[in-house]
Amino acid sequence: MSETKALASYVVTNRLEDIPSDVRHEARRAIVNYMGCAVGGSPHPAVDIALRALGPYAGKPTASILGRADRTDPLHASLMNGISSHVHDYDDTTPKNYSHPSSPVASALFAYASVNRVSGADFMHAFILGFEAESRVANAVYPAHYDVGWHITGTAGVFGAATATGRLLGLSVQQMIWAIGLAATQAAGLREMFGSMGKAFHPGRSAQNGYAAALLAKEGFTAGEHGIEGPRGFAPVQAARYDLSKITTRLGVDFDLRENTYKPFPCGIVNHPTIDGAIQIHNEHHPDPASIVAVRLRVAPLVLDLCNQQNITKGLQGKFSVYHGAAVGLVRGKGGLREYTDEAVNDPAIKRVRELTTATGDPSVTEDQVNVEVELRDGTKLSKFVAQSLGNIHRPLTDKQLEEKFRDQAILVLPAREVESVIQLCWKVDQLDDVGELVAATVPAAAAVV
Amino acid sequence: MSETKALASYVVTNRLEDIPSDVRHEARRAIVNYMGCAVGGSPHPAVDIALRALGPYAGKPTASILGRADRTDPLHASLMNGISSHVHDYDDTTPKNYSHPSSPVASALFAYASVNRVSGADFMHAFILGFEAESRVANAVYPAHYDVGWHITGTAGVFGAATATGRLLGLSVQQMIWAIGLAATQAAGLREMFGSMGKAFHPGRSAQNGYAAALLAKEGFTAGEHGIEGPRGFAPVQAARYDLSKITTRLGVDFDLRENTYKPFPCGIVNHPTIDGAIQIHNEHHPDPASIVAVRLRVAPLVLDLCNQQNITKGLQGKFSVYHGAAVGLVRGKGGLREYTDEAVNDPAIKRVRELTTATGDPSVTEDQVNVEVELRDGTKLSKFVAQSLGNIHRPLTDKQLEEKFRDQAILVLPAREVESVIQLCWKVDQLDDVGELVAATVPAAAAVV
Repeated sequence: MSETKALASYVVTNRLEDIPSDVRHEARRAIVNYMGCAVGGSPHPAVDIALRALGPYAGKPTASILGRADRTDPLHASLMNGISSHVHDYDDTTPKNYSHPSSPVASALFAYASVNRVSGADFMHAFILGFEAESRVANAVYPAHYDVGWHITGTAGVFGAATATGRLLGLSVQQMIWAIGLAATQAAGLREMFGSMGKAFHPGRSAQNGYAAALLAKEGFTAGEHGIEGPRGFAPVQAARYDLSKITTRLGVDFDLRENTYKPFPCGIVNHPTIDGAIQIHNEHHPDPASIVAVRLRVAPLVLDLCNQQNITKGLQGKFSVYHGAAVGLVRGKGGLREYTDEAVNDPAIKRVRELTTATGDPSVTEDQVNVEVELRDGTKLSKFVAQSLGNIHRPLTDKQLEEKFRDQAILVLPAREVESVIQLCWKVDQLDDVGELVAATVPAAAAVV
Repeated sequence: MSETKALASYVVTNRLEDIPSDVRHEARRAIVNYMGCAVGGSPHPAVDIALRALGPYAGKPTASILGRADRTDPLHASLMNGISSHVHDYDDTTPKNYSHPSSPVASALFAYASVNRVSGADFMHAFILGFEAESRVANAVYPAHYDVGWHITGTAGVFGAATATGRLLGLSVQQMIWAIGLAATQAAGLREMFGSMGKAFHPGRSAQNGYAAALLAKEGFTAGEHGIEGPRGFAPVQAARYDLSKITTRLGVDFDLRENTYKPFPCGIVNHPTIDGAIQIHNEHHPDPASIVAVRLRVAPLVLDLCNQQNITKGLQGKFSVYHGAAVGLVRGKGGLREYTDEAVNDPAIKRVRELTTATGDPSVTEDQVNVEVELRDGTKLSKFVAQSLGNIHRPLTDKQLEEKFRDQAILVLPAREVESVIQLCWKVDQLDDVGELVAATVPAAAAVV
């Protein structure tokens, strides 16, 4: 059986009772994390602009956008949810393929659930299946696909959105094969967009396009039936090397959700060891920022490939600057949303430390590690080797830390009491009679009255 | 200056008076050919299905779909126009890069012009600039990009739609750079979809996504500023080898429109020499189909790469079968829309000849050539070498032949008198006060009353 057909059959025929309980709990954690990011990112100018540009062309305003009072059609709501949940680079990561998997899947599913009555059990099941489909497609083409310049969150994400919404739409295996084909032929997103709004556009468009693929397939819009593995299909075209067995091996037994991680800092994950190490030096030694004369980083070579921006003036650029990560950790002792604003990037103290920071790529340093060395004016050298960064699979955020992260973001949009209510609804998402209740709870009350 | 910026500057600042008159006439020919395809393809089930699936999510029905009474928003109208104009594989081709360039550009522009008053002069100018932008991007990555499996009509097409609509929207150079970036990051479409509705989806989605890219850029949605040439941009990511100088060399002096060709047969262009040769044998010798015992083709190797389907039952598959092309030419002496229906593919006489046809790839045969050898039961051998296929750049369809092709398609949708009226409006498109007049003329009158 072809990989496309095997995946389609799995998504169509799987039963919720086949999903182990630890995987279900990890799905809840992923949804808590996702929802905090979506709500926290919802007032971002990228969402405002996208709504202003495309809103006049959107359909009947039947769907809710998470965290906003605006209503639109569910396809555009998928796009907006995807932008908001990724725009702060704060969403989840599966380190084995460097994708941010929840955004494309959950962005489509919450849009779907805002216009269709969906039980929490069906919702969680579709989320788990879409996550797994997407992550396995990503595994098959990683690393060649990522290395050449694809933003795998966008390219693999469309498979997750298509299969997850396809499951809720009740597609047959044949229809699911077409949905996967229509996903494959829309798989896009270039790393060249990093540092611009185009990056957050990727999971949004993936959510919207995957949802549309499922709608088209349901009505009988045909596609090539070997969208993934065919000689002109996704894997051969978009990866110089690939391993299709990663799609089907132990399908339904192993779950990539178990290897999902949640960011403690709102930026590219490869910067996290540096921020973590810098914060540890700050907390242990409290060096006066003005006394710092040099900061030397030894990092994995990929860090310099991704996050080598030095002359920056925008918050968004800070996310792609390992130097900025070191500077905020050392100067402020933290790396939250407020350390990635335009103001923070132009803060003279941070700018000064950032500009005297240098980094060397060292193949013996893994992508979870860093060595930070700080030299002070009096000649003192402070150093910290981070062997495993906070938030990685070996030092995961606890459920409580996930709630804290949620609060820090959602409080920008919702009153504190409503923040707590949404957190509780997320933890019991699979018990809800109608997931629309959770979506509605994310809409600011004052605005909802309008 | 980067290629992205050079292209953006050219599209933004070019003046219509800088376009030579022969290029303008070729633009009119391209529009005549495009419009016949769009109107002729408009009743196709692929369009019906796409409207049924996505119509409920579409915006205010302000825009017209060419050839149909249905109204939708202009982004969805772009999608539908793109599907209808490509679904019969009858649209134009630039042989130097194997793209079908008019569909993505014109599909977006006619949708735009159905909701915004656009003069014919501005419309034609935007069409020429979008065509040129798209074709030059295609040239830069051809053939490596195409060979690996990309459907270049989709991937390059989004650049054409973005720049053409961006021109009408009055984008600044900065905004046009973002529009090109947002096009680059949506460049998709796999040849694995050939033989399914997914193929025609490509120019449609390119038109829709390019139009959306221009709308987003106009409102300030930012993108990477080196969408084409950046290290993680379109060319490096999507082509193993590329030549960026093809984007900028003699920009504004040479025009790819001069190298545009129009298909005499509604199928993949690499099949045309075979159909042409088979029709010539039919016309010269009138062999009784039942007397044919073998048909041997010597073709360019690419023909077998693209059109090697033998066991087929659907009209759409016939387009990707060089064997079917030989059979219809020999049995019916023609290769029009009616030779690519399910009925024709299952016609016993055609099926019989198709199944006794064999093909050999021969590197000494160009993609414009074929040698057809027909063996009859009495041992007679009829053969024909086609050195240059009808419709290629050296044997172009005349203006009159383009009109005939238009009539053969449009008559399926419009009364004969209206067909003539649309033809005349296409020839004088650049003199119209409002291109909306042409769009309206393609809507069947009876339906328009509704």
